[in-house]
Amino acid sequence: MSAKPVINYGLDGIYVDESSISKVDGLNGKLWYRGYSIESLADQSNYEEVSYLLLNGKLPSSKEYEEFTKKLKERSDLPKEVIDLIKVMATKSHPMDVMRTATSMLVMYDKDPNNREPTSTLDKIVTLIAKTASIAAATGRFRENKEYIPPDPSLGHSANFLYMLTGKKPNEFESKLIDLMFILHAEHSTNASTFSVLVTASTLADVYSATTSGIGTLKGPLHGGADEAALSMMNAIGDPKNTEKYIEEALEGKQRIMGFGHRIYKTYDPRAKIVRRFLDESLAKEPSDEVKRLLQIALRAEKMMVEKLGATKGIWPNVDFFAGPLYRVLGIDGHLFTPIFVASRMAGWGSHVVEYWGNNKLVRPVEWYVGSLDLPYVPIAQR
Amino acid sequence: MSAKPVINYGLDGIYVDESSISKVDGLNGKLWYRGYSIESLADQSNYEEVSYLLLNGKLPSSKEYEEFTKKLKERSDLPKEVIDLIKVMATKSHPMDVMRTATSMLVMYDKDPNNREPTSTLDKIVTLIAKTASIAAATGRFRENKEYIPPDPSLGHSANFLYMLTGKKPNEFESKLIDLMFILHAEHSTNASTFSVLVTASTLADVYSATTSGIGTLKGPLHGGADEAALSMMNAIGDPKNTEKYIEEALEGKQRIMGFGHRIYKTYDPRAKIVRRFLDESLAKEPSDEVKRLLQIALRAEKMMVEKLGATKGIWPNVDFFAGPLYRVLGIDGHLFTPIFVASRMAGWGSHVVEYWGNNKLVRPVEWYVGSLDLPYVPIAQR
Repeated sequence: MSAKPVINYGLDGIYVDESSISKVDGLNGKLWYRGYSIESLADQSNYEEVSYLLLNGKLPSSKEYEEFTKKLKERSDLPKEVIDLIKVMATKSHPMDVMRTATSMLVMYDKDPNNREPTSTLDKIVTLIAKTASIAAATGRFRENKEYIPPDPSLGHSANFLYMLTGKKPNEFESKLIDLMFILHAEHSTNASTFSVLVTASTLADVYSATTSGIGTLKGPLHGGADEAALSMMNAIGDPKNTEKYIEEALEGKQRIMGFGHRIYKTYDPRAKIVRRFLDESLAKEPSDEVKRLLQIALRAEKMMVEKLGATKGIWPNVDFFAGPLYRVLGIDGHLFTPIFVASRMAGWGSHVVEYWGNNKLVRPVEWYVGSLDLPYVPIAQR
Repeated sequence: MSAKPVINYGLDGIYVDESSISKVDGLNGKLWYRGYSIESLADQSNYEEVSYLLLNGKLPSSKEYEEFTKKLKERSDLPKEVIDLIKVMATKSHPMDVMRTATSMLVMYDKDPNNREPTSTLDKIVTLIAKTASIAAATGRFRENKEYIPPDPSLGHSANFLYMLTGKKPNEFESKLIDLMFILHAEHSTNASTFSVLVTASTLADVYSATTSGIGTLKGPLHGGADEAALSMMNAIGDPKNTEKYIEEALEGKQRIMGFGHRIYKTYDPRAKIVRRFLDESLAKEPSDEVKRLLQIALRAEKMMVEKLGATKGIWPNVDFFAGPLYRVLGIDGHLFTPIFVASRMAGWGSHVVEYWGNNKLVRPVEWYVGSLDLPYVPIAQR
């Protein structure tokens, strides 16, 4: 019997690969996609460019951009069987269950699903980016017993998603806001969902299998579900003037508050900083009472963290905290937050698969066995 | 810039948890489920008992066994919408794609899918064990344009699977053989698929999400697909007398030969040893010419490994090697091997989820960033 080895619970601090896709600097609150700061991309780029950048390692030329966006538009519509599946599930299951199942089903439209050549993989990912946004939108429609809306090729990718969900073409402000959310959720190194994509890909399973694993993993409340949970908390606070008291009591009770603090960021999440300004802008646009209250709660909570909790407890706002109120500005239901996360993150997941397959190694860790050995089998009559 | 850390490619040798579910002793070729040797379970137990043992940590009493098998029988039938989905996909996709999608869809029949209490989780796993076997069988039927066969409650779990697939009640020999395959595939510590189940579960996502990840991961040719690949090789060998020459040439060409050698077992895989005797028994039963050839090839290859390759190259037969010919004895198509693996392994996956949630830790490893930083954003017109 050997001595008990070090057990790396949660693989905390364990390096699993080298990567040139994104860097998260948690101490200084910085994030880069392929070397470009998230601020520069949020201000000057759009989701189509950012996806191209993540997948191909460089920003597209005009011609490359045109081809890429053309593919996205052409592939945004959903096959009939997938629409049928979404309709069957949408009123009975969480939209993430629908997303996981419908994405898994997409494999049947690929004539060569196991082709792992980089060009083929990249092409499959473009399909997945296009269709997962439409799956999210269709799920939102069917949940409310509304009809499926086919894509509008005159719109950009994220604006088209909003159109397919709401039936209204978004204005400039709404288009900018939804695109920003897509950009900010596109990639974040090997968090649990991206890592699960890689574990699946490491057996040389296809991209549909790998990203389906990512969706299931993102569903968990410790991961992708945080923005929906943060919104629930804001709804529980109800009146903006209760914000500080509610948070103080929650912190004293040592409750986990969703959207507060982050495993990696030990300062203001740079993505949260970027969407922060949309809170004021949205308030200025005279939203509904519900949205107004949510925005005010978010602003008061943010103030509390920046002026007090950050310095004393290292608790800073993260992107999940502001996402909820801002999605509500766009009229998006809480249950759709994580499916939108999926549609955006598809670019990051796909980039990681292509990179990992460039130097693939089957993921096969070990466990330390602490059970019995050589128990005698006793027949059932004598048990 | 810090120095490059150790990168744990494939998490080789990295301990991720403690476990009392199974122990694999790769050096001595031994395997225990919950402390019971795989030989004692293969000889004296059956799949229902083994599943109960894995899930509950002890062998069932007569009363517990009765309740457990009753649940399995009651839940083996498939809902209409799932049958429809399988029918839509079965002729267009690999059965593992069907299995992944249909299992993901099962969540919609669970009224409380996110309940993570151990009793609820165990109950969901019983449903998944029951229905994944039926999904595999139905997929096999629809691939050949045959009708769905509802379960026969007079049969044991694995025999019922064979009945739902072939429409014939298996004889004693066939029942023993399929049950053995189910037992031998039920659990094998944290290989890639089981680990991917845990990564997904670690975000507190539901059991359907977690096992769906396992299915996608098991699909990969480096993992669950090995028995199907081994069968393809035997078909390529064609004539038994070509066996040795084919293998020698393959080894010289440094090709990976499926079913030969194992990442963990450095000697004869104990599961392979158990099924080994069924090769002779099956031959004695005057099978079809195709099956006879496969069995003879398997026997000659085994002899070669035991007498020569084991000592010189450490290459021993593993369970995937014999699985193919024996499944063919039962009339099972190669495409269904991995779905059967899923149906059997569901017991192991479920056991790991219950155990992991007892001391849950979000899996979040890190990557070593090797890309650029602070690249200047250049507008598209100037690229």
